[in-house]
Amino acid sequence: MNAPVISFSRRLRVSPFELRSLEGLKSASVYNHLVLPTCYESLEADYWHLREHVQLWDVACQVQVEVQGPDAANFVEYLTPRDVSRCQVGQCIYTPLIDEAGGIINDPLILRLADDRFWISLSDSDVLLWAKGLALGKGFDVRVFDPNVFPMSIQGPKSADLLSRVLGDSIRELKFFRFVETEIAGTPVVVARTGWSGQGGYEIYLQEPDSGVTLWDTLAAAGEDLQVRAGCPNLIERIESGLLSYGNDMTLDNNPLEAGLDRFFKLGKSADYLGRAALEAIAEEGVTHRLVKLVIAGEPVANPRTVYTIQGAAGENIGAVTSAVYSPRLNQNIGFGYLPVDSCEKGARAVVLTPEGARDLWVADNDWSS
Amino acid sequence: MNAPVISFSRRLRVSPFELRSLEGLKSASVYNHLVLPTCYESLEADYWHLREHVQLWDVACQVQVEVQGPDAANFVEYLTPRDVSRCQVGQCIYTPLIDEAGGIINDPLILRLADDRFWISLSDSDVLLWAKGLALGKGFDVRVFDPNVFPMSIQGPKSADLLSRVLGDSIRELKFFRFVETEIAGTPVVVARTGWSGQGGYEIYLQEPDSGVTLWDTLAAAGEDLQVRAGCPNLIERIESGLLSYGNDMTLDNNPLEAGLDRFFKLGKSADYLGRAALEAIAEEGVTHRLVKLVIAGEPVANPRTVYTIQGAAGENIGAVTSAVYSPRLNQNIGFGYLPVDSCEKGARAVVLTPEGARDLWVADNDWSS
Repeated sequence: MNAPVISFSRRLRVSPFELRSLEGLKSASVYNHLVLPTCYESLEADYWHLREHVQLWDVACQVQVEVQGPDAANFVEYLTPRDVSRCQVGQCIYTPLIDEAGGIINDPLILRLADDRFWISLSDSDVLLWAKGLALGKGFDVRVFDPNVFPMSIQGPKSADLLSRVLGDSIRELKFFRFVETEIAGTPVVVARTGWSGQGGYEIYLQEPDSGVTLWDTLAAAGEDLQVRAGCPNLIERIESGLLSYGNDMTLDNNPLEAGLDRFFKLGKSADYLGRAALEAIAEEGVTHRLVKLVIAGEPVANPRTVYTIQGAAGENIGAVTSAVYSPRLNQNIGFGYLPVDSCEKGARAVVLTPEGARDLWVADNDWSS
Repeated sequence: MNAPVISFSRRLRVSPFELRSLEGLKSASVYNHLVLPTCYESLEADYWHLREHVQLWDVACQVQVEVQGPDAANFVEYLTPRDVSRCQVGQCIYTPLIDEAGGIINDPLILRLADDRFWISLSDSDVLLWAKGLALGKGFDVRVFDPNVFPMSIQGPKSADLLSRVLGDSIRELKFFRFVETEIAGTPVVVARTGWSGQGGYEIYLQEPDSGVTLWDTLAAAGEDLQVRAGCPNLIERIESGLLSYGNDMTLDNNPLEAGLDRFFKLGKSADYLGRAALEAIAEEGVTHRLVKLVIAGEPVANPRTVYTIQGAAGENIGAVTSAVYSPRLNQNIGFGYLPVDSCEKGARAVVLTPEGARDLWVADNDWSS
């Protein structure tokens, strides 16, 4: 397929980091109306570097929706099946937002900044409009707005080494999914121990967009001997680490139970939320399909542009592969896909129709053993 | 600035036309989670071809929100200051959707398919979420969903010649902003006399995505001697024709009055709508800035990545250029921008700060004379 270059215009919002993150960038996507880098050197070179060193990621596209006001806690509670009352100030929770039918609207990280103040840190859909519409319609007493806060991320095994040079050794003590409000190079930031890789790291929420380059340069300078360089969420790494991508692995047509996101919440919280009746009915009845980790036989496959159809023994369509990539470390194609619940046990086999032809496929274990 | 190529994944929805529209495509953007072509040969060559011949545009990114049900008319009425009750079945209206403060959510075309059934044909924001949220919150008895309908467009002076070969001469009689439901190459389509250029043409709403390539090929074959080719909304042409772009020329931070969209509706319709109080207060008080057509002196300028600041005589910031391009036909830089209401008369001068330095700028007439 022909790969056109990206046209820039004001409609693609400016990342505070783009003067640095566009340098040497080979490919990118657009995510929440911002450019999301996807490859610097090569998918594989970026992957190995991320596993061995430390990278700076421009993830300004993870835009924030701020919810503030007397009803803020009740309203955020209303958006998700997860029990938000158990999220303390200084804590982040990962949770799906759902609609009235249980369809997934987004799978954000929610940061509780104060009892009555939250940032919803988004995957790729305009949740600002969803939240504003719902809050206005239901009459919640909240302000819902875009606070113009942009995250960058430090990911890789040397992340703590790098960040401790800038913020002191105490940052090593920050617990997983906790955050602190602090300053780097004179600019106020929120630093969370989170990030879209399995290699460890931090996300830094920049509140003064004009300081983006200074923040980036400060971190780059501090890590020179650590081989720090620009990087980005890596397709190989994120699949290996089991990280789902909204729009790829689940959409509004999927519910959190079939996507396996129910491991992040317990059905039956006391507070009211949109979609409760639908979600409880789905749980009661049981889902028909479930997202599983898959191995695809044969030569390296390309990540699907559309879903790849999965066929059962009789050639009938039974499911679909949503993401796939060749892992140079595991020496096999790995991916995610939906299969009927009675075909989800480890080792269950089927056939997937890729553009390069039919391939055997089987359900992998959580660590990709199969 | 470095221009990376676009990475494709399932998260960028597939246009039914992309097997054709990606051929020879040099640059593109992403719009409503789909690829929007921006240049085939060169901005200027595409421009002249569009003005002289006829082009097929993949504008599948103009996604639809369908509103259906007993409250459909009341709900669509609630979304916009324009009087929807005057829109007949078979008619399209262009109108802003606004929020509670009068900010512009989107500037769609609304097609009335039946008394109780509408398509909202979007510019670049997830109005599906906005409309679902509001309808759920306010308890409107409607279904709000994505009908999986994708538009392509035929634009250019030979559009009617081309389309009449496929649909017969009656299609020449279709009035501006009217549509008909018909069939092309055996696939049901809605054909509207609309489109995002000033060169005349039609938009064809495809209801069976699998027939996209057939539809495209049928039109391409019918127009071979008319020099039909793939094209796309053209920056030069759309600015010359005075067409505003949501995200570029207006955002949620702008109201329809300052953006000049109030020429498409009359304040004071009888039906209730969101933002009425705010919009009437703005009208009462008067806007501070207004969007105007501008000429920028000197060598060709690049379309702004961010807004270009406009300064007054004393060097103070008074406004901003939102879009700009060099017109090879008018032999000057033309664009849109916001200026204080007392500096909006034709010929009013100011200075704009472009990356290439300060330039004189003046307010143009509607036909760009100045």
